[in-house]
Amino acid sequence: MKSAKRLGTQLDFLREIDKLKGIERRTYLNDGSRHENSAEHSWHLALMAVVLQEHAAETVDLAKVIRMLLVHDIVEIDAGDTFCYDELGNRDKEEREQKAADRIFNLLPDDQSAEVRALWDEFEERSTPEARFATALDRMQPLLHNYSTRGGSWREHGITRRQVEERNHVIEFGSPKLWSFAMSLLDEAQAEGFLEP
Amino acid sequence: MKSAKRLGTQLDFLREIDKLKGIERRTYLNDGSRHENSAEHSWHLALMAVVLQEHAAETVDLAKVIRMLLVHDIVEIDAGDTFCYDELGNRDKEEREQKAADRIFNLLPDDQSAEVRALWDEFEERSTPEARFATALDRMQPLLHNYSTRGGSWREHGITRRQVEERNHVIEFGSPKLWSFAMSLLDEAQAEGFLEP
Repeated sequence: MKSAKRLGTQLDFLREIDKLKGIERRTYLNDGSRHENSAEHSWHLALMAVVLQEHAAETVDLAKVIRMLLVHDIVEIDAGDTFCYDELGNRDKEEREQKAADRIFNLLPDDQSAEVRALWDEFEERSTPEARFATALDRMQPLLHNYSTRGGSWREHGITRRQVEERNHVIEFGSPKLWSFAMSLLDEAQAEGFLEP
Repeated sequence: MKSAKRLGTQLDFLREIDKLKGIERRTYLNDGSRHENSAEHSWHLALMAVVLQEHAAETVDLAKVIRMLLVHDIVEIDAGDTFCYDELGNRDKEEREQKAADRIFNLLPDDQSAEVRALWDEFEERSTPEARFATALDRMQPLLHNYSTRGGSWREHGITRRQVEERNHVIEFGSPKLWSFAMSLLDEAQAEGFLEP
């Protein structure tokens, strides 16, 4: 039966993406107890979108931002999480992630595979208000956690304020308000001595 | 500044809910390596909603189902995860969770607190198509994981097929199609000997 096959295909995809729970990021939980994984990170970002949508630079379609955030890290199942300050890792990141997208999204029935791929491409290209706001949240969250853990992964990897600003100023394109808040956190982090200039 | 205070309040809530990543469920990941936590579980359910929406019993507002699933477990930060087969724990579950909802959702600005509380209440009451579909997914996912792990938490806690059917037949109200699939999995689980009748 065609319809039973379709459901089976959908459930295969949903079983495969369970692996995202095993992809470890460099960011620590706010209590510093362990690193965050990419699945729970995606949940957190989706809720950030719900709560912070009024601070987006432009009016956004919230439902689309959320779907984008739910799928944006799935490629890491094959490609791994690339630390945003890892210059070497970021050189072939795109190639690794495109390959991963080809394999994983194609587990879905064709219509849904195209839909999810389009969402992911849009996120990567950052050419719409939704993608820019989603990116802002994706960069803002680790910054908040690094602040909460008094330097967390910044200290661990010797990241300076200059690097944090360079890597994260894209936040401004999605939400000037969040970027301005981020800058005030960086001021405090520097004043308190857990972020080098 | 009023607006800066509002953002601060929203970020306090978003920092608090990070704790959901530390709430352990009885369900195992599909690879059996560890128990799932409630934050990554919520992410998984939201993606199940995206992929499986066509199987809902009635037409649903997908964006609402997703928002409902994103917030449905937040009360567990205070109330803990109650195993659905734990009769004793389920007796005072509602009271514990209502108290948790009062505290945690009230961390948000009033308008957002009311919005999130309404979503959670709707989920708990199961009186709308969205809530019934969200519940179906919330019950279906552990069942899929218990199947993938050849009995997983069923075996660990001596759960029988009769108990699984009793506790999960609500799936049928949200999606007869998923319930029928669930029954076929239970048949297989029983035939293969990792679920007692």
